[in-house]
Amino acid sequence: MATTAPVDVKELSGSFIFVVDVPGLRNTDVKVQIENDTILKISGERKRDLDGQDMDIKYVRVERPAGKFMRKFNLPSHVNLDSISAACQDGILTIVVPKVPTPEPHRPRTFDVQVGSVLLGNT
Amino acid sequence: MATTAPVDVKELSGSFIFVVDVPGLRNTDVKVQIENDTILKISGERKRDLDGQDMDIKYVRVERPAGKFMRKFNLPSHVNLDSISAACQDGILTIVVPKVPTPEPHRPRTFDVQVGSVLLGNT
Repeated sequence: MATTAPVDVKELSGSFIFVVDVPGLRNTDVKVQIENDTILKISGERKRDLDGQDMDIKYVRVERPAGKFMRKFNLPSHVNLDSISAACQDGILTIVVPKVPTPEPHRPRTFDVQVGSVLLGNT
Repeated sequence: MATTAPVDVKELSGSFIFVVDVPGLRNTDVKVQIENDTILKISGERKRDLDGQDMDIKYVRVERPAGKFMRKFNLPSHVNLDSISAACQDGILTIVVPKVPTPEPHRPRTFDVQVGSVLLGNT
C-alpha cells in the first residue's frame, strides 16, 4: 500500500524543507505540530470524495490512497521552532523549518614570528 | 514503486468520473486526450521542485513519486466523447465522461381484452 502522505525532506543552507503530497487537502485540512520541542508531527485525513453520500455511485477502480495519516520526524537541535511556517498549495504541503544561524566559524590565524627578536625575559 | 498518478474511476447513473492524484500540477500541466474514439489517455510530468536549480540543496528523504506518467483507459461505447470535461483543483484532476442518454426502456404493456366481444371477421 502506498504511503498516504509521502514526504520529501530537503536540507538547504538556512533551513529544512518538508514537502508532503496531500492532493485534495487545503490549509485547514492538515495539522502541523511540534511535540516535545523535537518532533515535527504532520497529520490529516484524505477522504474519498462522496464517500457514503450517494448510493448511486459505483467504484470501478480504486488506486488513490485514502484515510487518516500521521507522520513524525525528529528535528535536529539547531532549528528555530518559533519560525516554522507551513502552507498548502495545489495539493502539496510545504513546511519550512529555519535553522538557527551559526556564528562565524573560527578561522585559523597566521602570525609572522620574527625569529631571534623575541625577548623571553631571561632573568 | 507507487504509481505516479493513481486513478479512481466512479460510475454514476449519467457519467463516468476519473479522479487522478496529481499534486503540484495545474490545468496546463496535464494532457487529456481521446485516442481512436475509444481510449482516454491522461499524461503529464511531476517534477521534483528545484531539481537541478540549486546545488546547495541536499535531499535527506525522498518518498514522493516524480517523473512522467501516462495512463490509458478503454471507454465503453455508450459515452459522449464531445462532452468530456476535465479540470485540476488542489492537486486532483477530475475528468467527467458523460454517458449517452439511453431511450426509455420498453415497458411491458397490458391490454384488457373483452372476452367474447371481438369480431374475428368470419366470412
